[in-house]
Parts: sequence; C-alpha cells; structure tokens
Amino acid sequence: MRDQKKALKGIKVLDFSRIFAGPAATQVLGDLGADVIKVEEPARGDEARYLGVTDAELQKFGGVSPSFLALNRNKRSITLDLGSPAGRKAALAIAAKCDVVVHNFRLGAMEKFGIGYEHIKALNPGVIFCEFTSYGKQGPMSHIGANDLGLQAHSGLLSVTGEPNRPPVRVGTAAIDLHGSLALVSAILAALFHRERTGEGQIVETSLLMSSAHLLSYFYTEYWMDGTVRKPMGTANHLSVPNQVFPSSDGGVVIIAPNDEMWQRCVKALGEPSLGRAEFATVLGRLDNRAMLVEALSAVTRTMTSRELVERLGAVKVNVSKVNTVGEAADDPQLAAIGGVLEFEQDGRPIKAVANPFNLFGTPAAVDLPPPDLGAHTDEVLRELGFADAEMTALREQGAFGKAQAKKSA
Amino acid sequence: MRDQKKALKGIKVLDFSRIFAGPAATQVLGDLGADVIKVEEPARGDEARYLGVTDAELQKFGGVSPSFLALNRNKRSITLDLGSPAGRKAALAIAAKCDVVVHNFRLGAMEKFGIGYEHIKALNPGVIFCEFTSYGKQGPMSHIGANDLGLQAHSGLLSVTGEPNRPPVRVGTAAIDLHGSLALVSAILAALFHRERTGEGQIVETSLLMSSAHLLSYFYTEYWMDGTVRKPMGTANHLSVPNQVFPSSDGGVVIIAPNDEMWQRCVKALGEPSLGRAEFATVLGRLDNRAMLVEALSAVTRTMTSRELVERLGAVKVNVSKVNTVGEAADDPQLAAIGGVLEFEQDGRPIKAVANPFNLFGTPAAVDLPPPDLGAHTDEVLRELGFADAEMTALREQGAFGKAQAKKSA
Repeated sequence: MRDQKKALKGIKVLDFSRIFAGPAATQVLGDLGADVIKVEEPARGDEARYLGVTDAELQKFGGVSPSFLALNRNKRSITLDLGSPAGRKAALAIAAKCDVVVHNFRLGAMEKFGIGYEHIKALNPGVIFCEFTSYGKQGPMSHIGANDLGLQAHSGLLSVTGEPNRPPVRVGTAAIDLHGSLALVSAILAALFHRERTGEGQIVETSLLMSSAHLLSYFYTEYWMDGTVRKPMGTANHLSVPNQVFPSSDGGVVIIAPNDEMWQRCVKALGEPSLGRAEFATVLGRLDNRAMLVEALSAVTRTMTSRELVERLGAVKVNVSKVNTVGEAADDPQLAAIGGVLEFEQDGRPIKAVANPFNLFGTPAAVDLPPPDLGAHTDEVLRELGFADAEMTALREQGAFGKAQAKKSA
Repeated sequence: MRDQKKALKGIKVLDFSRIFAGPAATQVLGDLGADVIKVEEPARGDEARYLGVTDAELQKFGGVSPSFLALNRNKRSITLDLGSPAGRKAALAIAAKCDVVVHNFRLGAMEKFGIGYEHIKALNPGVIFCEFTSYGKQGPMSHIGANDLGLQAHSGLLSVTGEPNRPPVRVGTAAIDLHGSLALVSAILAALFHRERTGEGQIVETSLLMSSAHLLSYFYTEYWMDGTVRKPMGTANHLSVPNQVFPSSDGGVVIIAPNDEMWQRCVKALGEPSLGRAEFATVLGRLDNRAMLVEALSAVTRTMTSRELVERLGAVKVNVSKVNTVGEAADDPQLAAIGGVLEFEQDGRPIKAVANPFNLFGTPAAVDLPPPDLGAHTDEVLRELGFADAEMTALREQGAFGKAQAKKSA
C-alpha cells in the first residue's frame, strides 16, 4: 500500500507531540502518505493512550482509549527516553534524517534536550521544525500551559456559548485542539511546498491561542469596530427568526428561514395557517415578535416527528437539519457514503474511525497502518534509518529506549 | 510588499466561493502570498459583505460586514456574470491561467457554467480544482444545502453542547465552517506540493460534513466501540473533578486539577482547609463527591476576583483560565504579543483583524491588500492575465462583468 501514489510519499515526519492537536495533525500527514515516526516516552507513552476514559472504560477498550485510536493511525511508534543522554543522541540522529520535526513540549524543552532547531539544522539544513504551544512563543503568557477548555475560556468562545442569562457551557468537543491540528497541517504543507521550490527549511508554529482567535475572528473584528460584545442565545441567532432548534415529537430540528420567501414556503409546508399572520411576514416582523413566533412554530413542530419535518421542509428548500445524537450522526449513511468512515483492525479488533477531513482524488488517502502499540517499531525504524545493529545494542544498553525496552531485550 | 519572500509567491487562485469557509480558506492562501482573485456576482457580490449584521449595523460599519472584513484581506475582486455567455467565457479564460480554482456552488453548477474540472483541465492540465459542499459529492444528502448550524445539528455537536437535562445550545461561533476552511487549505497545499513534484493537477474537496465529523472523530470512534453516547455536562467533564468553570466575585474561571498532586496544590493555594477533607483527596473520591466538591470549591472561588484566582492557582501550576468576554479576549495583550492582531486601512478606516492562524518564520505573512471593494480589480486582473483592451471592451459590452459595470464604463 505504501507504493500507491500519495501526495506526501517519501516525506519523513518525526513527531514528539502528545495528546491531541499534534497527533491529530500528524495523522493527516500520515493519511497523505508521509512516514510518521511517533516518539513516545518509554513505559508511559502518549498520555492520549489512556486519557479521556476512566480506568474501567480503558479495560473495556483493550487498554487504549478511543481518542488515541481515532487520531493515531498511519504512524509507527518508537520509544525514546529523552531523560537519558543516549536517548537524546538517538533523537538527534533520527531528526537529522527527517523532513519535518513536530513537538508540543513547553518552550525551550527541545533546546534543553539538544534537539532544538539549531541543533537539527546543523545536520539537516532543510528541516521543517514545528512548534505547537498553548499561548505562543512570546508575550506575558507564553510560558503558561493550557488545554482546550482553558482556551475556550480565554478566547471568549465560552462567553458566546450557552443559554441567555444562564452560565456558559463548553463546546462539547475539543474544537480548539482539532482546529489547531489543521492549522499545523497547513503550516507544514506550506513549508514543504516552499522547501520543494527553494530548498529552504524553516521554523513554523501555531498555538491553541492562534487557533481560538481564528475561530473567533469575526467576533473580534466586530468588537474592534464598534465595541459589540456578543452574548449567547441558546441555539438562536440575532440575525433572523426562525434560526434555531425547534422541538419535534421525537427530538428536535434546526429550522432556518432567513428571508420572507423561505418563510412563506415554511408556513405552507407545515400546513398551519395561523403561522401566516401578518406580524410574521417580514424579516423585521419576525425579529420583533421573536418569542411569539418561536412559541407558535414550536406548537406546530412538536406535533411532527423529526423525519417528517425534514421531509416537509427539505422538499421546499427550507434549511432544516435533524438534531442527531453522537450515535445517530456516526451511523448516518451520508458519512459512510462519502468515504468518511474507515474500518481497520488493531490488535485483532475491528475499529471504525473518521477519515481524513478532505479528499485528494488524484492521490487518495488510505489506512496503511493501524494505531501503533507503544514502541512497536523502534528497531524497524532505526534499522531503516541506517543504524547498525551494534549501534542499536549500545543505545539500548545505555537506556536510549527506556528501561522497559532495555529489560525486554536483555 | 508582493516582492517579499512568501511561501505561495506566484500561485494564482481563482476563488468563486462565497460567505464563510471558502473565503476564510483563500484568505489564508493570500496571507501566504498567493494572488487570490475573488470572483463576485455583479451588483450583489459575496453575500458575506452584508451577512451577519442587521441593516442598521451595516450602515454603522460603512456598508460592509465585520465578517467580510475579517475573512477577505489579501484578495482582489472581479465581477463576473456567470449567467451571461460572455461572463462564462471570461471565467474559463481566467481559470485557464490559474493554479487553483475554488468554488462552493452546488454540485454540477460549475459544469453547467462550462467551467467544470474537465473544461479547465483541457486548457490547463495542472489545475487544482477545489470543491466545498455541505454534505459531500455522493450519497443520499449530497444535493442538500446546509450551513454551520445545520451541521452542528446533523453531526451531534449540538447534542454534546449545553447543560445537563436542558436544551442543546449552539457552539457560539461558526466552528464547522472555519474548521472546514483549514481542511480546504490543507487539501490545496497538499495538492500544490504534489503538483510541484509531479506536474499533476487534481480535484480536491471537503465539506461541512467532513469538517464536522473530524471535530467529532473521537466521539464517533468511542460510540462505534461500545455504544457510548455522550451527553452535555455544562462546562464540566466526565473524567475529573474539578474540570469546569467556577464563579469568581467578578466573573468566572476554568479550574482543572485532574490528579491528586495538582488538587493538593489547588487546596493549598486557595487557603481553605475544609477543601482538604479526605473525601476529596483522590480522583475517584472527587468524582464520587462531584456535587459536594463543586459547591465547596465554588464557595471559596466566589470570594475572590478572577485575577486573584488566576494568580494564586497559576503560580502553583494548577490549570486555570479566566472566562473572558469577546471584548476582553480581543484586547488581551497576549494575542497582540504573538502577532495575532493585524491593523490596516480599508476605504480610509482603520481595521483590526485576527492574523493567519499559523506562522512560517522563514516566509512570514503580511497584509498586502485590504478586503477589496466589489469588482475593484476587474480591469487590472484581466489586463495582467493578458486580455487585450479590445477584448475587455467586447466582454464588457456583452455583459460579462454585469450590467452595473457595463453602464459604469459606458
């Protein structure tokens, strides 16, 4: 499978990143055909292996978390003890042979390990060195660690998410982490393109702060223009009515009819003449009579199933979407129809996962490797990179791959 | 400024996309130095110019919306009437000279206009043709249009966002649109890299559905593994306590202390001995006594300002973040310190906007052009692409650039 035409064929990525954004980014690179070498701490490994689940759940999942399985295919795992001189020496020797090096250590850690940009560049001038931090590389908060929820709070995302006059709520998924992962992918691909044209490597970076600010960019510009500070409105919107979730007999649907023609089609399709009253006929009228309209429309939608509402309104091109649970969404046939669902085996178990978030039709993605067991490819990768057997034995004895590995081979 | 070293220098992008995801993507390409030619409908233009604001707000903003200003710098605007044969002819002739063509029309529209992939490829074999749709290119829902909120509903994102046992709420920003924009950037950059190495163009695509599924990917894998369907928990988390927003005397802060050592540091830093009780000492104890702990901790945090909580807890490396409003977040000095705030002039007004969501230190981004006025660069772009004056006059008379433009030049 590795022979197939892939966009990133032949590109080697050395990935020191852990948990979410970094691994999500390098999975995209792996899906595109890059050879991703995941460096993990001996014994412990990427914390994502057991994060996001309780101990009881972890047992049920065979010792590795769903989020690790979702974000670590198409990688090989090696263990390196960066606390040992031999581990750091091996890391630098490997980095010298890679096109891209990714990390999300705190600022200065890579330099302290002797595998900072300048160290690698001296051996490998074209290297693309990628840093992912919480708050960026300069400024008063640059040395503070944070996670997705922390940046939801800091960025104001929490402040626009929730019901009016009630506490904020979190965006249910790690949107800032995952958005940051695609910012990192974009940065790396732009740098690879530049290197292909000029031979020049460089440092690239992104952060949870940059990711969160990009997600809020139009709110910030609006605020900077006239001081507007938006507040949460449940599922509703200050621009138009209806534009929110309405109850159905078995759940809910989003209904959006921003202009008068669409509203008329909505009224007709629902077959409830009282919705056709004059107060509701214009954009401004619907905004002015928001509470009344929402109540009147809810009274109608509550009598129908979600499916019926989607069919009636969809047929007349009113924007309508069913509110799915996570399970309904995962199993909805549309996602599988567009190739959005991957199936593969990991340690003998069938695993399903979401595909790469874009398609290149000329150079399609594929699952060449399931998420790796911790350190499963240490020997294989080192041998491929030209390490001699004696050299590998010496590194192992010096603890480069961790005590567990040293013991295993003894 | 266009002479500066930029990653995408010399790359021409013809952008038919409107509103959010497409324009957000091509702005990133423009920031990287690509020459982005934004094609707009004559007279009307990209709906984003006036979307997201009421008419009264639009007046205040000088006739163009904050979201348009936030997402359309580093582009030139041309108007083309794709309803006229001359407009379609001009579109194809321009596309023949571009490296990348982006659109988010419904499926088949570009082919109907005579500017589908096959039409352009016949003249320009290396073209990268990019499609952004709602639900993808195949399957039962491929012909349905939808927007960000629709996909928040369909994907299950709404179903995990909100307070327990209360209605779902929307993610306050257009996260699926903007995440999709970086998926599109990634797809285009990967295809450009492949073309640079092989000369081959291709079709690339993404969709709101792929973007939303990527954001929910670990929820889906978990569901597929054992049927778990997550529910919203406000700002809290099923994994650990405390891990949510707590009230301060002047707002709120996120406090996260997932392990026992961090919890002990948190107790000590807050100076409230009653938090040190045995029931709260272990991860499991805190989970089992969630309500009691949240109440006890809230009673303490409520007596302190957000700033005091951030200082006390930050000093002992407990994860803590202030819940900022949109305005506080926009003005927070950290964003400006990392170069995250751009300032430029548009029609004589000073505008502030969020920078590109990643940095390439060897080939930095810059604002070379403010968001364009509708059709401001039609003549300039056509002349640069080699259209002769007589040809441009003929196209104009045939309505290629719209009636308004034809009149203006008459």
